[in-house]
Amino acid sequence: MADRAIGIFDSGVGGLTVYREIARQLAGEEYLYLGDTGRVPYGTKSPSTVLRYAQEAAAFLVSHRVKMIVVACNTASAVALADLEERFRLPVIGVIEPGAHKAVAVTRNRRVGVIGTEGTIKSGAYTRAIHAIDPQIEVVSVACPLFVPLVEEGWAEHPVTRLVAEEYLAPLLQHDIDTLVLGCTHYPLLKPTLRSLLGDDLTLVDSAAETAKSVREVLHRDHLLRLSPPAAPRFFVTDLPTRFEQVGGSFLGDLLPNVQQVEIG
Amino acid sequence: MADRAIGIFDSGVGGLTVYREIARQLAGEEYLYLGDTGRVPYGTKSPSTVLRYAQEAAAFLVSHRVKMIVVACNTASAVALADLEERFRLPVIGVIEPGAHKAVAVTRNRRVGVIGTEGTIKSGAYTRAIHAIDPQIEVVSVACPLFVPLVEEGWAEHPVTRLVAEEYLAPLLQHDIDTLVLGCTHYPLLKPTLRSLLGDDLTLVDSAAETAKSVREVLHRDHLLRLSPPAAPRFFVTDLPTRFEQVGGSFLGDLLPNVQQVEIG
Repeated sequence: MADRAIGIFDSGVGGLTVYREIARQLAGEEYLYLGDTGRVPYGTKSPSTVLRYAQEAAAFLVSHRVKMIVVACNTASAVALADLEERFRLPVIGVIEPGAHKAVAVTRNRRVGVIGTEGTIKSGAYTRAIHAIDPQIEVVSVACPLFVPLVEEGWAEHPVTRLVAEEYLAPLLQHDIDTLVLGCTHYPLLKPTLRSLLGDDLTLVDSAAETAKSVREVLHRDHLLRLSPPAAPRFFVTDLPTRFEQVGGSFLGDLLPNVQQVEIG
Repeated sequence: MADRAIGIFDSGVGGLTVYREIARQLAGEEYLYLGDTGRVPYGTKSPSTVLRYAQEAAAFLVSHRVKMIVVACNTASAVALADLEERFRLPVIGVIEPGAHKAVAVTRNRRVGVIGTEGTIKSGAYTRAIHAIDPQIEVVSVACPLFVPLVEEGWAEHPVTRLVAEEYLAPLLQHDIDTLVLGCTHYPLLKPTLRSLLGDDLTLVDSAAETAKSVREVLHRDHLLRLSPPAAPRFFVTDLPTRFEQVGGSFLGDLLPNVQQVEIG
């Protein structure tokens, strides 16, 4: 069991920011990554549709005999985590709880902002996860639907993106938050723009590092850390690999080898 | 046969601009509209994936015994039209040829610009369709990936959209075009922004009216104009109807009744 791969899925390329961090912290593991690029994005779709897609993505990974599933997509984590745990009887780790824990740990004034896709924000999953730890924290959430297309266009540091960010973040700044959760795996690429807009006093919380820590803890707890020599990661997508390889490179900061198209629906 | 409905499909809400124009010109017909909202958008996906989705959408309409298929999506028209005609042996009308005809008819300096999704522009379908009529026309094409998300965010006339348009259209204006084809069904909502940027001398070509004219001509030619009393239109989507109803209202300028979720994959 310990020598099986860690399965990671996302709606597309965004989850590569999470994969990168896990692979950095756990370099000896084997990884299978699935990007559902044929049906991307999840963030504008309804919870029932995202749940179905997440079930199909997880089933694909389970059919490849993974030892754990990482849901490297905030929208899917928000609606599908409990269902996947029950359905597949494997450790399932999402990105929302780790991000919520980090936000609670770092906020000083106990006012936390959360930005994400429409699906993630509407689900209220971050607010619930933060309040489960500390119900006194004020959580202000804003959906930012244009951030994903702007990042995918390669405009993460474009003046247009700064203008869009000013408009989206205005309600958060009015609440005097001191911590902002980047509740979408595309958003770490916006850090320079957000930082220049928000200043250095505000803490940006990116779930990737915290999620990797959770993965490590669970593998350790369940005696599932890999002992065999490391194997090369494999990447699967549900559309042609071309665009995933191109855009994914900027998320991974490296070339993407071994990308293969599969059907999962 | 004449009393059967006209089937129209699109990746989502955009095709409603085409439906609206057809229904205006042919008020006595019955309509079935399918928006593949569970897999929207098509414009960023590969030709082979868009072809498969278009085949499934058309098969759904054919299973409801339509007399004709209108592909109210530029990306799907660009890659799937010939295949659907051969596969279903029904009249199949796309939005690209009508738009190309109109552009050729109105240009005076024979320099035509085309804007659309990545999929539509990469296919070269507009350039081919225009050159099939007049090979001497200079065609300059630009993909505008952010226009669809901006329109869906309700920002069609937002200052940010004007800035984005300035950047996308700069290469077109350098070529001194006198005609611009709006090669995506979302773009008619951008007309005020494009007009304020481009001035009144440039002609904006929107395929909807021309496509409706083609539909009328084919129905007339094949003696397929409906004789029975008109029936209410029906709308089908592949995700929950909520978002389609909300965003679709702004495309249709009216409420959307009878929207029903179906599975087509």
